[in-house]
Amino acid sequence: MARVVVDVMPKPEILDPQGQAIQKALGRMGFETVSGVRQGKRFEVEVEGELDEAALAKVEQMAETLLANTVIEEYTVRVES
Amino acid sequence: MARVVVDVMPKPEILDPQGQAIQKALGRMGFETVSGVRQGKRFEVEVEGELDEAALAKVEQMAETLLANTVIEEYTVRVES
Repeated sequence: MARVVVDVMPKPEILDPQGQAIQKALGRMGFETVSGVRQGKRFEVEVEGELDEAALAKVEQMAETLLANTVIEEYTVRVES
Repeated sequence: MARVVVDVMPKPEILDPQGQAIQKALGRMGFETVSGVRQGKRFEVEVEGELDEAALAKVEQMAETLLANTVIEEYTVRVES
């Protein structure tokens, strides 16, 4: 069994109101050295069997079709363990 | 300027209905090799100036006080660039 991590973040050109709200909140809490915050999603996918090229390509497909909205988001896939 | 990533995931003992719903959806889409999915949040925090021990400790504090609900979530902090 292997764990594959899919990180999904808003595309850089897309406005990130959540990230901006967090940055302001951190400022009010006294964390003044923060110049930007972006919030996205992290998925940990447990995959059975051998994690070969084909299995990794399937996780890419999962990200493309379900985990990320590729119109406004970009994703990265990496093997964690 | 440095980018610090804070990953926030539900604690293992906490039920993750979102992750379960995604796992079922992936199964219906034909991705049968998925034995588990957990969904969390990923924050990219841009920090000004030198990223020394003190600056990193501050990001830990941000995670502890705002980014994660430490009753039901656990977090990791790592320097990305």
